Amino acid sequence: MLRRRDERLYAVKELPLSKVYQLLEPGPVVLLTTASRGRANVMTMSWHMMIEFEPPQAACVVSGNNFSFAALRATRECVIAIPARKLAQKVVQVGNTSGRDVDKFAKFGLSKLPAACVAPPLVAECFANLECKVPNGRLINKYNMFILEVVKAWIDPAQKNPKTLHHRGYGTFAVDGAIIKLKSRMR
Amino acid sequence: MLRRRDERLYAVKELPLSKVYQLLEPGPVVLLTTASRGRANVMTMSWHMMIEFEPPQAACVVSGNNFSFAALRATRECVIAIPARKLAQKVVQVGNTSGRDVDKFAKFGLSKLPAACVAPPLVAECFANLECKVPNGRLINKYNMFILEVVKAWIDPAQKNPKTLHHRGYGTFAVDGAIIKLKSRMR
Repeated sequence: MLRRRDERLYAVKELPLSKVYQLLEPGPVVLLTTASRGRANVMTMSWHMMIEFEPPQAACVVSGNNFSFAALRATRECVIAIPARKLAQKVVQVGNTSGRDVDKFAKFGLSKLPAACVAPPLVAECFANLECKVPNGRLINKYNMFILEVVKAWIDPAQKNPKTLHHRGYGTFAVDGAIIKLKSRMR
Repeated sequence: MLRRRDERLYAVKELPLSKVYQLLEPGPVVLLTTASRGRANVMTMSWHMMIEFEPPQAACVVSGNNFSFAALRATRECVIAIPARKLAQKVVQVGNTSGRDVDKFAKFGLSKLPAACVAPPLVAECFANLECKVPNGRLINKYNMFILEVVKAWIDPAQKNPKTLHHRGYGTFAVDGAIIKLKSRMR
């Protein structure tokens, strides 16, 4: 799928849904986009986990203080975009700024691409984008927790071996280092 | 706190509960210990996330196929033990073996230490151990999800700058690499 935006051409490739857990299970910091009343927003998030392999489902916690909370609760749609090392500075800036008064895409130079199945945009600079729907809102009121079902997944084939970021608090991150492969009986 | 076991002396130091999220938020693979009818067990887990800073609460998903599931549901207690790089091989072995017929601590050379507030043991070789209680079982039946409240946390001061493991599926892990610090306004 080729998508043109801002004079640049982005080629994103669909990823089989069965492989989505391999992106989220390692616990990377992610960007979460929403769209409400025609306006897109993006926040930074580390509180997420896989809960089902296929169809891939994740859970995440979004504080009620986040401007994204109301949009996610109302529209039941979002995109999880996974940034690599080169986006670390933007990840922190996005996390330190509220979308209440600011267009964070414009302010921090992130490019929106149209998603296929949901209204919130993909983030072109991220190496993976997961279009998500909230199948039910049962856990929102009690835990600010959203169940997310990934309905379409995209990767950027131009970003080889992206190194993800793991937040340790206060703007400190562990960047992916060595990749090790051990003999496993996992399916 | 000094604890003697198997002729070795382990010194574990209490960690303030306010710092627990910095251990779990980066998404490391962890070991989960349970104890049921006087018998301890240990499993490998990557499906967990923080859900509250303080008192620290996490959520995790344990498959009903795991032998640990029944123990955790019945006793509402566990320990999350965080292994560093040197334990990678044992992490995979523990994950590939059921505790139904095997004492995995003995088989894989992991040392149990008594916890302070819960029956399941700490894992002496891990650099952090979090004693957890399940405040309610509301999400177990629907999602196999457990809410965990960390009631006591321990670190091993002898393990400096431990590198954690992030599971990418099939026994492949990203090991923590560079640590980067960016200017953040986070509290």
